[in-house]
Amino acid sequence: GVSPFSHSPAASYTDSSDDETSPRDKQQKNSKGSSDFCVKNIKQAEFGRREIEIAEQEMPALMALRKRAQGEKPLAGAKIVGCTHITAQTAVLMETLGALGAQCRWAACNIYSTLNEVAAALAESGFPVFAWKGESEDDFWWCIDRCVNVEGWQPNMILDDGGDLTHWIYKKYPNMFKKIKGIVEESVTGVHRLYQLSKAGKLCVPAMNVNDSVTKQKFDNLYCCRESILDGLKRTTDMMFGGKQVVVCGYGEVGKGCCAALKAMGSIVYVTEIDPICALQACMDGFRLVKLNEVIRQVDIVITCTGNKNVVTREHLDRMKNSCIVCNMGHSNTEIDVASLRTPELTWERVRSQVDHVIWPDGKRIVLLAEGRLLNLSCSTVPTFVLSITATTQALALIELYNAPEGRYKQDVYLLPKKMDEYVASLHLPTFDAHLTELTDEQAKYLGLNKNGPFKPNYYRCWF
Amino acid sequence: GVSPFSHSPAASYTDSSDDETSPRDKQQKNSKGSSDFCVKNIKQAEFGRREIEIAEQEMPALMALRKRAQGEKPLAGAKIVGCTHITAQTAVLMETLGALGAQCRWAACNIYSTLNEVAAALAESGFPVFAWKGESEDDFWWCIDRCVNVEGWQPNMILDDGGDLTHWIYKKYPNMFKKIKGIVEESVTGVHRLYQLSKAGKLCVPAMNVNDSVTKQKFDNLYCCRESILDGLKRTTDMMFGGKQVVVCGYGEVGKGCCAALKAMGSIVYVTEIDPICALQACMDGFRLVKLNEVIRQVDIVITCTGNKNVVTREHLDRMKNSCIVCNMGHSNTEIDVASLRTPELTWERVRSQVDHVIWPDGKRIVLLAEGRLLNLSCSTVPTFVLSITATTQALALIELYNAPEGRYKQDVYLLPKKMDEYVASLHLPTFDAHLTELTDEQAKYLGLNKNGPFKPNYYRCWF
Amino acid sequence: GVSPFSHSPAASYTDSSDDETSPRDKQQKNSKGSSDFCVKNIKQAEFGRREIEIAEQEMPALMALRKRAQGEKPLAGAKIVGCTHITAQTAVLMETLGALGAQCRWAACNIYSTLNEVAAALAESGFPVFAWKGESEDDFWWCIDRCVNVEGWQPNMILDDGGDLTHWIYKKYPNMFKKIKGIVEESVTGVHRLYQLSKAGKLCVPAMNVNDSVTKQKFDNLYCCRESILDGLKRTTDMMFGGKQVVVCGYGEVGKGCCAALKAMGSIVYVTEIDPICALQACMDGFRLVKLNEVIRQVDIVITCTGNKNVVTREHLDRMKNSCIVCNMGHSNTEIDVASLRTPELTWERVRSQVDHVIWPDGKRIVLLAEGRLLNLSCSTVPTFVLSITATTQALALIELYNAPEGRYKQDVYLLPKKMDEYVASLHLPTFDAHLTELTDEQAKYLGLNKNGPFKPNYYRCWF
Amino acid sequence: GVSPFSHSPAASYTDSSDDETSPRDKQQKNSKGSSDFCVKNIKQAEFGRREIEIAEQEMPALMALRKRAQGEKPLAGAKIVGCTHITAQTAVLMETLGALGAQCRWAACNIYSTLNEVAAALAESGFPVFAWKGESEDDFWWCIDRCVNVEGWQPNMILDDGGDLTHWIYKKYPNMFKKIKGIVEESVTGVHRLYQLSKAGKLCVPAMNVNDSVTKQKFDNLYCCRESILDGLKRTTDMMFGGKQVVVCGYGEVGKGCCAALKAMGSIVYVTEIDPICALQACMDGFRLVKLNEVIRQVDIVITCTGNKNVVTREHLDRMKNSCIVCNMGHSNTEIDVASLRTPELTWERVRSQVDHVIWPDGKRIVLLAEGRLLNLSCSTVPTFVLSITATTQALALIELYNAPEGRYKQDVYLLPKKMDEYVASLHLPTFDAHLTELTDEQAKYLGLNKNGPFKPNYYRCWF
Repeated sequence: GVSPFSHSPAASYTDSSDDETSPRDKQQKNSKGSSDFCVKNIKQAEFGRREIEIAEQEMPALMALRKRAQGEKPLAGAKIVGCTHITAQTAVLMETLGALGAQCRWAACNIYSTLNEVAAALAESGFPVFAWKGESEDDFWWCIDRCVNVEGWQPNMILDDGGDLTHWIYKKYPNMFKKIKGIVEESVTGVHRLYQLSKAGKLCVPAMNVNDSVTKQKFDNLYCCRESILDGLKRTTDMMFGGKQVVVCGYGEVGKGCCAALKAMGSIVYVTEIDPICALQACMDGFRLVKLNEVIRQVDIVITCTGNKNVVTREHLDRMKNSCIVCNMGHSNTEIDVASLRTPELTWERVRSQVDHVIWPDGKRIVLLAEGRLLNLSCSTVPTFVLSITATTQALALIELYNAPEGRYKQDVYLLPKKMDEYVASLHLPTFDAHLTELTDEQAKYLGLNKNGPFKPNYYRCWF
Repeated sequence: GVSPFSHSPAASYTDSSDDETSPRDKQQKNSKGSSDFCVKNIKQAEFGRREIEIAEQEMPALMALRKRAQGEKPLAGAKIVGCTHITAQTAVLMETLGALGAQCRWAACNIYSTLNEVAAALAESGFPVFAWKGESEDDFWWCIDRCVNVEGWQPNMILDDGGDLTHWIYKKYPNMFKKIKGIVEESVTGVHRLYQLSKAGKLCVPAMNVNDSVTKQKFDNLYCCRESILDGLKRTTDMMFGGKQVVVCGYGEVGKGCCAALKAMGSIVYVTEIDPICALQACMDGFRLVKLNEVIRQVDIVITCTGNKNVVTREHLDRMKNSCIVCNMGHSNTEIDVASLRTPELTWERVRSQVDHVIWPDGKRIVLLAEGRLLNLSCSTVPTFVLSITATTQALALIELYNAPEGRYKQDVYLLPKKMDEYVASLHLPTFDAHLTELTDEQAKYLGLNKNGPFKPNYYRCWF
Repeated sequence: GVSPFSHSPAASYTDSSDDETSPRDKQQKNSKGSSDFCVKNIKQAEFGRREIEIAEQEMPALMALRKRAQGEKPLAGAKIVGCTHITAQTAVLMETLGALGAQCRWAACNIYSTLNEVAAALAESGFPVFAWKGESEDDFWWCIDRCVNVEGWQPNMILDDGGDLTHWIYKKYPNMFKKIKGIVEESVTGVHRLYQLSKAGKLCVPAMNVNDSVTKQKFDNLYCCRESILDGLKRTTDMMFGGKQVVVCGYGEVGKGCCAALKAMGSIVYVTEIDPICALQACMDGFRLVKLNEVIRQVDIVITCTGNKNVVTREHLDRMKNSCIVCNMGHSNTEIDVASLRTPELTWERVRSQVDHVIWPDGKRIVLLAEGRLLNLSCSTVPTFVLSITATTQALALIELYNAPEGRYKQDVYLLPKKMDEYVASLHLPTFDAHLTELTDEQAKYLGLNKNGPFKPNYYRCWF
Repeated sequence: GVSPFSHSPAASYTDSSDDETSPRDKQQKNSKGSSDFCVKNIKQAEFGRREIEIAEQEMPALMALRKRAQGEKPLAGAKIVGCTHITAQTAVLMETLGALGAQCRWAACNIYSTLNEVAAALAESGFPVFAWKGESEDDFWWCIDRCVNVEGWQPNMILDDGGDLTHWIYKKYPNMFKKIKGIVEESVTGVHRLYQLSKAGKLCVPAMNVNDSVTKQKFDNLYCCRESILDGLKRTTDMMFGGKQVVVCGYGEVGKGCCAALKAMGSIVYVTEIDPICALQACMDGFRLVKLNEVIRQVDIVITCTGNKNVVTREHLDRMKNSCIVCNMGHSNTEIDVASLRTPELTWERVRSQVDHVIWPDGKRIVLLAEGRLLNLSCSTVPTFVLSITATTQALALIELYNAPEGRYKQDVYLLPKKMDEYVASLHLPTFDAHLTELTDEQAKYLGLNKNGPFKPNYYRCWF
């Protein structure tokens, strides 16, 4: 599904800077005289602060955590090094971690995704931030290093998104792990790398896989994609959904969200699947389960949601009808074999930002969105509410690992405890004016549960 | 949700027997001369056979297993003692187990649920069946004992539904467990008892919890209840769903099914929940999350789906409006405090089978369905397709436990391996003319999966 | 869609009378000494009264009309002769007409549909009712004649359902029309006969076509069928809807209701249509528009909703797959060519009430419901709420015609004035605790509307 | 709903012209030497041609009309003067009218909506077009006059959108009506003006109200708004729909579309209505019917779809909660009393194009979209498919009026004959690969219909 990278058009309005000097070559100080940061332009801080304030209004869960932290500081003493997208929402997270008692140093996990104004605002507030939009690869690692390699300061917690920060410390400063209490990792890729480390017996601190927390998964995938598939298609093609024939490859949470949304808008939806359990669900939800070949000639839209590679091949593309739209909502940019379209007999025509017409010799056009990269990241926005779920999950995972009694977590990869997961959810209920029911003592006893949760037994797997 | 007890009206047409002699006092022989059974009336065998043949047509997965068993007999040597509802669908299961090589002896797990004709047909075919409709409690245990306590035959597998058979062997013949390779248990209650035995260190053979297999859960709960809530309400009350205000207590799979169905029919649905994760899902699915008290005066229907007790109390019942319908779709008969309605000032009026009007002194009437027992069992039918999923899961669990290499399963409670679960699903896809996609070698390698599954990693929990 | 004939199981419990004497040969008196009626058994009056009281609770609109009639009696002086189904709901209508000032005499419009207890209760209350369950054709006309041919009483209003009463007066007592102020007709058939009379210049009084009032149409067709298609299929076949392939012939209001319900339950629905406007709507609502031949081999269910004849032919039936279910939700019993199945090579097997298996020589079975008659009438029930809409519409049409100033209505067929139609709707809003917004003076002026309606201009046609 | 004004971002890329000279002051010639046109810049013709060619691909119905016109020219001799939005889609219509035999002269009905490149392309092809983006009011009437007031050419047909062209001819050249065979009018406003003329006895030629044709209505309102409400809200606010509380004012076709879409996306939707029939439908469709006051404090979004004025008043705005979004999907810009917000104590802050925050003294912010003008016109796009329906309807109405035998149409306002309406629909079915069923002779006779339609009787009103 998604990662916490908001493409808010509002946020970029001061970006068209002519200043081509590398931030690494600039001398900048914030208003308190500190120069322990590296951002594009510290003078943009005010604009960034405004963005952060707007984001705060839509992230009530983090604001609630700040409020509760007025008494106890659960992260007092924590020294967190972070590497994530740097957006207004991340800023709200960082300032919350600060309010909970932590010291933070931060770099960007993506060379394009930093909002310079926000980075400036954080630097102005005293956060050592090392990030700007358009870093080179060398800049990228330099920024990470500046977060970690500091005189008189050693991190004891890692918050990572993609695993690059963790990788850097493994490679350059392995001794640092002696003081590190744990890693919180947010991305599919980063989690995969942690499981591989663990399998190889090389994971030397506990790690928390927050990517797979139930709440985050449901929002990143099912709920977010249900809306962003429509949004992404509309913004790029202005097409009408009613009556269109669509094939959705993959019926996991992302596929389920896409299918539900398009069905509701009057499209006729076909599904492909490799897993018979998901396949049976597609049937029961009212979708014809087919192989891609069976419908490829007749569909108006092809959407991939598999996490697999080469799901849509050149052969499929050759057989699509004129004006067929092809896009990817899955976990990678490998699902559509775009490379196979870079051949001399095909003409590419850029008709809009993120929209290419690929034209066959006979005049047939395929409408390829975002060059096969993730549609929801490229052509839609991630709602702040979804980012709030993610950020709150990260904050609670840091608190859990930092405060866990010796021995609760070993050198392994853990899922967020269900109680924490439930807590993230409960912090977001007030947004909907939703009123939770409390168990009576008698009921709690009858069910064998603690009144405050967790509410699901350990062997409970998939039925919420 | 449900248990495999079909109330097919067609099946009972020879039941209105005047014969009041207890089956235990009768001398009956089947056409091959055997008298190793005890059923109501062996002469009803032909009617029962017809029911079994109809059921076979709708249980293609078991029929497919039979076909594959023409070569290998994966249950050759198995001696299975079973205790389940005895219906046409169970008969298809038993005869499939036979075709796979097993010997079976069978009793009923419920004193009312046996279809006498089906029991007769099984006895006629040579199955030692001990069951009839309307057993006394003494009869019940006598039947179980007759299955187990046989000269020259000792069971090596147990198939139980509710745990009574297991309990009986524990109590009377504990030595029998030496030869028993495993227990397959299908009910919530039975599974609960097994986990308690396991916790107490008293479980002396491996047990398979098939109740919680993903496929079975989805069908027993979400898919089945989505249809049976409408069916149960219509058959009992002939009400119109459009525009009605409904509160559904509990947003697990059962609650989700009820909510989706009623919303689709134009009802306005409110939800109560104790678990914040489920609560947040209810919000995102478009339901107002409330406490029961907030809406109890205004709703037309109250439906419980919690598995909890006293969710609807006398106080709630006192505050409901005239003609409010109250029913239970959960796991027990404790959810509505029906006992609290047995007070002198309230008048009960039976208006139809399974429908009571409870009348307050001021004339207000509450419409109570099935006296608070499960609506879907009492007032609807369980589709054969759902029973087919359950029966196939049971058969595969028996095969798995019986053939598992020494040491794979210890004295513990196990979930069905995901691959088996997937196999159950795949056997049911042909019903929908559904075509599964196969991974290419390259894709399987990319995903790190075997081409034949299982398709989900171990830490995968809830996102299908 | 439907006609006001409720199959309430509760209502028939005193019907199993052994009394074979024809009511015409009995001497019966009610408790006030009157014998101006002819019913099965006047002693059943008490049971019927209880049914009527229950129906009153669910027909608040008529009860509201009664309340308003405590001052003015809009039907004072009206002498209404009626010919409709005689059910508890009709009784509530008749007693409402009485409360509004009318005198009534009544016969049944169908030889099977009379609920004897209700007829008895009406007779006991002083209504001259001539009707019983199981009339012969001779009885049928005799009853109608007894309503009309009375010494010292001449009707001045006709309420008809099917046109038989109107036909009888035309044929036998044409002079009676001199005093008759109008006819209110409720059925498709009756309306068709009236339009033919009008075309032929033979209609000699104004007639009101209440069948086509907007409110009644929406409820009889869209809303009622949305629920009854599911109910009818479940009660007859216990099938599961999820994943089933269904073809619905006709996408008028009935077809729309069926399609929406089955889609919501997870069926895959195909539609056939002859009218391109309805066809385009089916597309935009997400249904594949096909010719029946294209899908007949693959579907699990065939539903006709056309009002046309021979939509499903023997050729289609020959090509259906095994176990395909065939049923009719349309306006007549001609849609499926059932006659074509009465051939020697096919075997009919009655498996349940209203369910026949028709078996081909090769063993293929088709499941035919209600022998091709209307499924919703034969195998489901019509909710009282729908009957309440119809009865209120009839009452208001009678009031309108009876009170209309000379010249407003000529010798023609009229639709219910939109204001009356709106009034019927408004009387049913309290059931849903629905709160209507009132126009301000300024808004009414802006829109050029009267604050009390009608709210739609004359050229307004189909967009609600 | 909508009018045919596409905001295609792609179309405007050559617009950022610095050329400030008024087109009226320029001397331009097309490549054939003609100067009978007035557009911004004839050199943009090539860009416009490309836009027209893309639009042609999505308007197959007009292309089909062109094909059929290769033999007969149903508009041979027609001299059409038109006044509509000038977009690529309009160009396809104009060139189709040309292919059908007509001569055309054209002006814009809106001073902002002309796409200059398209106007240039039309001028280059020889169409006398008088229109550019950003006309003054004087320019506006000058352009219209240039279409009408020509030496040696008199129009015999009018195609109008809004009634300004018709008004101009009435005022300036009333004698022209002697040769005019009819007016085709497309907008609500224009139709209203025609009905007023007709009422006043001043309509001197037949007029066709194409706004109210069934097909156009369904697409402009129900189907288009179902998609554009989501699109408009997303593009302006990036909000998440799931769990949001929304009130929709008005449950006509536009309201129905908005409600269905938001419900499907997981919003909780309330409805307000003045018409009891629409109100009852809202109930049956599962929406709580409320007065605006009852929910105004709790909702997250307020959407008006009434065509009424001051539906949302300052008092309502004062009571909304912080961050409440307010927008208008109805027929005018009067529904929200925006003027009442222009008071000194409220601060307006423009946060994005089309998005204002209105800030109360206590800090509460209301998010007002498009300053209360139509959201779907300002913040979304109208799909070409919808414009195709409209354009085809206009073309057929012109053909009908131009070819009607003397006397078929009098000096009155007519709706498009149902058969024409059905023809428009049928021309759009191939887009969906939809296959219409044809009546057999026997069926047509049974139904009393012509096999080619029209398929609905005259008294048929609202049930498709």
